[in-house]
Amino acid sequence: MNKEEIKELLESVKDNKLNVDEALEKLEDLPFKDLGFAKIDNHREIRVGYPEVIYCEGKTVEQVRDIVKFMLTKNNNILGTRANEEMYNAVKEICKEAKYNKLGRTITIRKNEQPLTENYIAIVAAGTSDLPVVEEAFETASILGNRVEKITDVGVAGIHRLFSKLDVIRGAKVVIVIAGMEGALASVVGGLVDKPVIAVPTSVGYGANFGGIAALLSMLNSCASGVSVVNIDNGFGAAYNASIINKL
Amino acid sequence: MNKEEIKELLESVKDNKLNVDEALEKLEDLPFKDLGFAKIDNHREIRVGYPEVIYCEGKTVEQVRDIVKFMLTKNNNILGTRANEEMYNAVKEICKEAKYNKLGRTITIRKNEQPLTENYIAIVAAGTSDLPVVEEAFETASILGNRVEKITDVGVAGIHRLFSKLDVIRGAKVVIVIAGMEGALASVVGGLVDKPVIAVPTSVGYGANFGGIAALLSMLNSCASGVSVVNIDNGFGAAYNASIINKL
Amino acid sequence: MNKEEIKELLESVKDNKLNVDEALEKLEDLPFKDLGFAKIDNHREIRVGYPEVIYCEGKTVEQVRDIVKFMLTKNNNILGTRANEEMYNAVKEICKEAKYNKLGRTITIRKNEQPLTENYIAIVAAGTSDLPVVEEAFETASILGNRVEKITDVGVAGIHRLFSKLDVIRGAKVVIVIAGMEGALASVVGGLVDKPVIAVPTSVGYGANFGGIAALLSMLNSCASGVSVVNIDNGFGAAYNASIINKL
Amino acid sequence: MNKEEIKELLESVKDNKLNVDEALEKLEDLPFKDLGFAKIDNHREIRVGYPEVIYCEGKTVEQVRDIVKFMLTKNNNILGTRANEEMYNAVKEICKEAKYNKLGRTITIRKNEQPLTENYIAIVAAGTSDLPVVEEAFETASILGNRVEKITDVGVAGIHRLFSKLDVIRGAKVVIVIAGMEGALASVVGGLVDKPVIAVPTSVGYGANFGGIAALLSMLNSCASGVSVVNIDNGFGAAYNASIINKL
Amino acid sequence: MNKEEIKELLESVKDNKLNVDEALEKLEDLPFKDLGFAKIDNHREIRVGYPEVIYCEGKTVEQVRDIVKFMLTKNNNILGTRANEEMYNAVKEICKEAKYNKLGRTITIRKNEQPLTENYIAIVAAGTSDLPVVEEAFETASILGNRVEKITDVGVAGIHRLFSKLDVIRGAKVVIVIAGMEGALASVVGGLVDKPVIAVPTSVGYGANFGGIAALLSMLNSCASGVSVVNIDNGFGAAYNASIINKL
Amino acid sequence: MNKEEIKELLESVKDNKLNVDEALEKLEDLPFKDLGFAKIDNHREIRVGYPEVIYCEGKTVEQVRDIVKFMLTKNNNILGTRANEEMYNAVKEICKEAKYNKLGRTITIRKNEQPLTENYIAIVAAGTSDLPVVEEAFETASILGNRVEKITDVGVAGIHRLFSKLDVIRGAKVVIVIAGMEGALASVVGGLVDKPVIAVPTSVGYGANFGGIAALLSMLNSCASGVSVVNIDNGFGAAYNASIINKL
Amino acid sequence: MNKEEIKELLESVKDNKLNVDEALEKLEDLPFKDLGFAKIDNHREIRVGYPEVIYCEGKTVEQVRDIVKFMLTKNNNILGTRANEEMYNAVKEICKEAKYNKLGRTITIRKNEQPLTENYIAIVAAGTSDLPVVEEAFETASILGNRVEKITDVGVAGIHRLFSKLDVIRGAKVVIVIAGMEGALASVVGGLVDKPVIAVPTSVGYGANFGGIAALLSMLNSCASGVSVVNIDNGFGAAYNASIINKL
Amino acid sequence: MNKEEIKELLESVKDNKLNVDEALEKLEDLPFKDLGFAKIDNHREIRVGYPEVIYCEGKTVEQVRDIVKFMLTKNNNILGTRANEEMYNAVKEICKEAKYNKLGRTITIRKNEQPLTENYIAIVAAGTSDLPVVEEAFETASILGNRVEKITDVGVAGIHRLFSKLDVIRGAKVVIVIAGMEGALASVVGGLVDKPVIAVPTSVGYGANFGGIAALLSMLNSCASGVSVVNIDNGFGAAYNASIINKL
Repeated sequence: MNKEEIKELLESVKDNKLNVDEALEKLEDLPFKDLGFAKIDNHREIRVGYPEVIYCEGKTVEQVRDIVKFMLTKNNNILGTRANEEMYNAVKEICKEAKYNKLGRTITIRKNEQPLTENYIAIVAAGTSDLPVVEEAFETASILGNRVEKITDVGVAGIHRLFSKLDVIRGAKVVIVIAGMEGALASVVGGLVDKPVIAVPTSVGYGANFGGIAALLSMLNSCASGVSVVNIDNGFGAAYNASIINKL
Repeated sequence: MNKEEIKELLESVKDNKLNVDEALEKLEDLPFKDLGFAKIDNHREIRVGYPEVIYCEGKTVEQVRDIVKFMLTKNNNILGTRANEEMYNAVKEICKEAKYNKLGRTITIRKNEQPLTENYIAIVAAGTSDLPVVEEAFETASILGNRVEKITDVGVAGIHRLFSKLDVIRGAKVVIVIAGMEGALASVVGGLVDKPVIAVPTSVGYGANFGGIAALLSMLNSCASGVSVVNIDNGFGAAYNASIINKL
Repeated sequence: MNKEEIKELLESVKDNKLNVDEALEKLEDLPFKDLGFAKIDNHREIRVGYPEVIYCEGKTVEQVRDIVKFMLTKNNNILGTRANEEMYNAVKEICKEAKYNKLGRTITIRKNEQPLTENYIAIVAAGTSDLPVVEEAFETASILGNRVEKITDVGVAGIHRLFSKLDVIRGAKVVIVIAGMEGALASVVGGLVDKPVIAVPTSVGYGANFGGIAALLSMLNSCASGVSVVNIDNGFGAAYNASIINKL
Repeated sequence: MNKEEIKELLESVKDNKLNVDEALEKLEDLPFKDLGFAKIDNHREIRVGYPEVIYCEGKTVEQVRDIVKFMLTKNNNILGTRANEEMYNAVKEICKEAKYNKLGRTITIRKNEQPLTENYIAIVAAGTSDLPVVEEAFETASILGNRVEKITDVGVAGIHRLFSKLDVIRGAKVVIVIAGMEGALASVVGGLVDKPVIAVPTSVGYGANFGGIAALLSMLNSCASGVSVVNIDNGFGAAYNASIINKL
Repeated sequence: MNKEEIKELLESVKDNKLNVDEALEKLEDLPFKDLGFAKIDNHREIRVGYPEVIYCEGKTVEQVRDIVKFMLTKNNNILGTRANEEMYNAVKEICKEAKYNKLGRTITIRKNEQPLTENYIAIVAAGTSDLPVVEEAFETASILGNRVEKITDVGVAGIHRLFSKLDVIRGAKVVIVIAGMEGALASVVGGLVDKPVIAVPTSVGYGANFGGIAALLSMLNSCASGVSVVNIDNGFGAAYNASIINKL
Repeated sequence: MNKEEIKELLESVKDNKLNVDEALEKLEDLPFKDLGFAKIDNHREIRVGYPEVIYCEGKTVEQVRDIVKFMLTKNNNILGTRANEEMYNAVKEICKEAKYNKLGRTITIRKNEQPLTENYIAIVAAGTSDLPVVEEAFETASILGNRVEKITDVGVAGIHRLFSKLDVIRGAKVVIVIAGMEGALASVVGGLVDKPVIAVPTSVGYGANFGGIAALLSMLNSCASGVSVVNIDNGFGAAYNASIINKL
Repeated sequence: MNKEEIKELLESVKDNKLNVDEALEKLEDLPFKDLGFAKIDNHREIRVGYPEVIYCEGKTVEQVRDIVKFMLTKNNNILGTRANEEMYNAVKEICKEAKYNKLGRTITIRKNEQPLTENYIAIVAAGTSDLPVVEEAFETASILGNRVEKITDVGVAGIHRLFSKLDVIRGAKVVIVIAGMEGALASVVGGLVDKPVIAVPTSVGYGANFGGIAALLSMLNSCASGVSVVNIDNGFGAAYNASIINKL
Repeated sequence: MNKEEIKELLESVKDNKLNVDEALEKLEDLPFKDLGFAKIDNHREIRVGYPEVIYCEGKTVEQVRDIVKFMLTKNNNILGTRANEEMYNAVKEICKEAKYNKLGRTITIRKNEQPLTENYIAIVAAGTSDLPVVEEAFETASILGNRVEKITDVGVAGIHRLFSKLDVIRGAKVVIVIAGMEGALASVVGGLVDKPVIAVPTSVGYGANFGGIAALLSMLNSCASGVSVVNIDNGFGAAYNASIINKL
């Protein structure tokens, strides 16, 4: 309710077109409505066309099934992340269209097919062990309506493989780089493209890797400009971010 | 030089339109040219219209002055970050147009005025102690040709001040959030806008802040989707990143 | 035994109303009695009306049952924290009134109903994953005799939900804020109330969350004054603390 | 502006006692006013009777003097924390009543003497090296209008000294415990009183103390219930917190 | 073999009482023998009267049994630490006298009863959760031939319990203090006795305890002189150390 | 393809000795070929005579079997590291010559026996718990064609055992030192030999060992020159490194 | 005052040999006196013959001088640690016998010469950079009345130098080992002697030494039994500890 | 002195060719001589042809000058690392040939020119800020008698610059890679050469670089085999190591 609308309301009161109680009711939740909270995009309350998202880790199979059940009543697309197979089976019983990406641990339900973007997001990954994060990012970006190109197994230890895919990487509007171990791929890609690069450190590695800290610090300290970073293994976050940029 | 162009060149040689030595010269730097390295945007080798950038920290006054002297021969805009006043004075002697942002510790030289973007970058900051990082980001974004809006002193401890600026924040194409201490501002802003948010933790704080680690971890773990993070105090990196997105 | 009482005792000896051996016995444990240790409130030795408390983690089922058995002889209320279901079943066999809060992992036995406080403690929590800590705090505060209001799922990513509950939060005498991930809720609530805020970081999150360190540091560095912090996941401690304040 | 007041306003409009533009103006800032933000107590915007507070660290002498100058126009009490002597001298030039606590590094200006609370806050400290934090807490609590008792040099290495002061500690409504090195004092005091204990780790120590981390972790893990913790060296925060509780 | 002995040997050669080959043989292992390595006390090669020690963690049941089998041939006492029950059962099959301390996870075999020391080692522990470390220390000290007094459940949260046992603690020649959580007990005991105190941090605790780091740092930073520290949960090391001191 | 060769090719085109399409084909992969990527030795694409290597951790049994199946078509030697027995059994079904080192968790398949080097690599290890890393290093060095000498159980607590093996250690061309706990062995060996020493910290230990960090830091800070370090438990990397040096 | 004495006192009251007020006075401070606090040895209140100790770091020159002035009235020996030269000069003005150890940064004043112990403490140090800690330990041990032998520059990189001093090390009743960098010396010495070893990590080193953490962790994880550890650079603590043991 | 020589000595004694006292003298230092300690190469006692090395950090100007003075008597080459200019000036006064490398902070004195190796060490560095470490490594490698090639400013953000120097890097016998920030250069170079790579993390960077930890972890986790790591900023250690390898 903007200034004009409030003025109009006040004039209706003045002109007795609207009684005081009705006006009061309309004004009452003004603080929130007018702050435009209905426009907020977040993990749970996402605008039309966007999927509903459930972070399944730490929830019981029953909880996941019940949340999906409720979501289904709203006829939106649905994305469940960090879901195990048992959760998927429970969901499948109440919704046959549900798909499971075993590697990416995502459940997806598509109620509304939407056209994909013309631009695409490139998902570039270092090693085969990073694939679970790649798949989580892929499923997220896809159900958010983005065209996606995956370029995997192009770690810097064999840098010619990366170069042979440079065209497809450079053609993207935004690039997600996923790497564990020392995470050097983010810097190398960041030095080769002039698009925003979102780096995802993965917990792949051992010893002084410390569950992804080595890659995380590496990416935060990237000598290449244009690289920003999300949490360790956060394929969902990277893809969500990339989707916002891809649709600008 | 793509496949077609190489073919054309070879045919010119065959048809004697081009002699071998000329062809050789063109092919010689193929490995680098064709990999497109000339297009690479990084801290030092930036394409036409972009400023040349010097990271002054750890350099001597003489080194900074000499680098600037050399850069001036190329007639580009110049940005020096993390520069102290002594460096600025040395630069000013060889270039009168040089400007110094004392808070942001930047030296800027504008040789080519370029039109600003229509879209703007919003730089949102928590406290007055974060201003040095705000100014570094501001100068960087500006000389990269972006329109910028600064919204400062809107930390979450007095959240109504943030709300009174929500319109200008939401109007941006990309938002930079700069905060020290616990860095909560990034999550709050991330929950209120549907634009990409680049979060910059600052080293402002004491005790268990650990030089910015508290804010860094806070931002990496943001419960709001759409937030990515750069290094502690890295105003330059955030602005560089934001500029790429703002110009998409 | 205060100065007056010792004097009285000495006079009784002098007047032969008390023989030396009886007096000796009474004085013998003076060092401890007079230091007032009987007034000490701690985890195990709590004054009249307070529940007896068992921290069950790391104990065997038999140990928990035996401790409860002994406590039952004293007819006090009993609170077992970090208890699993097996422990509960063992306890139930010896005490039918025992109740189990599965989420909060608490066993409670109420032998003496006491009137609740007029003031209430508000327990404010960010996400559904924080509920186990919420429930531990709730059960602790309740059995300590406090009226409690729970306000859950009001994380900062959707800040309007928090605002819609502001009245009930502000009405409390003391506020417990429970949040994982980046823990920003503590700062936001701390900025909105003028009551003591006890923040509980939870281990909810992944990657650079480091089992709750991100939220812990965030809360320790809160830009809002009036926030103090307890250990990660320590719902019991927060409620115990809040109870002391609520009863001042 | 509560429901009743809005109703009244609407009726005034209806009855032509108030014209639409005037009503509009009053409603316009409803979102902020009615959320009660004016009641918010934080570091900068504190309600009547409370001092204005400046965190001086990282500010220039000029900035501190200018902020104080502005504050003086509002005739409130003023507290400057982490202030050096140079800042004090600059402030003294514009306000003769300004007092400086050299150890606590605080500047205080009292424009309105207010009666002290009946209850008192006990500030208990381990060693003489912790005195700067003690003094910061003392000045903060005092200018917030609290009666304060200081009990210093009662570290656990000579525990009888602590016991000889137990009465005055137990007489307080809320206790602040300040300790560096291993911070054991918080646990010992926490086990001896049944009042809220706010623990402040200090950066006093060397080697594996890590600037206060040893004491911080010690206090967070206190085996005594009823202890909550603020940031390292944060005497201001502890006293602010204690003041809220002391005035409940 | 000292100087005198070598001289004697040489003279025997000179006098033909010893032939060259025999002398050579005796001199050959001079480098090691004379450095006195045979006197070295370590985990595996311990002098007469000392038990043979096996650190069982990370070994298979078969390996443990085989090592014990071999040790039995030497007729020494045997101590196995960090042993599980399965290991014990395997050992028992080959040696009926083997005893198992379930809490302390030690296997002990006594082939030679030796008289206990007159002086005793006091093992002081904070809580019941620290008992496994207490038992490991107890079994180690005992089989090394020391008289031991255990004083448990005397954590600082209820400090009067500690005081009631002060006499027995002060009567020891050396004191082992075992505590988890914040480890404050080491400082308090260190301030009350004038004997060497060996502090053992335990991994008991949760959250910001970080598996014993809180107690470890606390003990290293003890404000009481006379406290030295061993590794987290290292009951064996503390007792071994205490035994050396107790037998001085 | 160097300058001369390109010139020659162009002249062949000019002289019609080579048609344009053929020339194009040769030039096409110039960027990569000429950068000499075919010469690159890395974990996956190793030159003739070298084994193919699979890092099995995090892969499924099926994936490991399928990769081996494919590798077998190339008739190279094969090394699988971090393989469990189930993987080995699956591999054995498709290749009878496959051998499993249970301790080192390696699968090896030898299709081409190659002569061992004359020089040898010495693998020196502190304790029996370090044997898994010793065996991984041993198998790696062996299948890479190196002669290897193992010297185990020579930890510094019984330093005479190390000295008795000094000759064989000093006779090596390169020395690998493997140690957990405090990792002191690397410094001691580094002070006794004048050959390159590659130190491998192991995760053996407990408490403040932090999964190998103690040994890692110890080795990085070695007071003996000539010591370089690889990741915790990285027997493969150390042996790969040593092999390169041994074959120089 | 023991049981017998209290009984006697009560009987005196009964028999009118002592009036009630006198008896009361004697009983009044029973809690502290009887707990024997007068016997407590700590940093400040040390029994007859022991020096008074001041930790000078963080104190002003005036404070140090004033404390010494007061101590001089008690005619005890005095030890000031972490003192700079300015402090020494101020002390010298009021006490000519004051001595300064520049390297060890100690001030010592000997009022009562006491005979040295027969047994000696061996102080073994790795490098010349560790000498400041060596000297602090030496001065502390000496003024506490111990005979001391210093064995320096025997780091493990040249282990024969250590061996040439083995006799003097083994002859000590207790051994202090001081080492920075990787701290391996503690383990090596621990393996060569059968006396208690107190290890002092020093902050000597750079890079991944982290101000002494590398040596600290190394020593805590020592593979040699019989090693306990004090705080980084804590020469005083080690010597204080060693003195207690040496005098047992 | 080997077995044969001892036998000969004994026989000389037997045959009265050598008297007992002479024989005794020869045998006396057998333990050390025969262990071959004279062969040990370490920082201080290096064999003929090697320079004497002084680590100057933490030493006074006088100490450095005196050590050099003593070393000059032995007529060896001398290398001083981490030396400041004042130290150099003091050294120059006693030795005119002394040279100072200001960037690398080394003092070098060449008394014996030795021929350089045929093979060379390649020193590859990321940025200009890494030059101090490059120069320390360069001076060390040079005075140890190695031919060295420096390839600087080839960070991965502009990877084509690295490729243009690939030939000279691949031509080396051993490669030192020096990089700060994220240290990705080590992995990229490690993937491009088949020579041993010694990686040196530098403390260049800011924020989450943590003084070189980011680069250190990155290098330890390198996805390229054949990379080993030395301490942060340890140019000396890397060069010393490389020299050993280069001379194999």
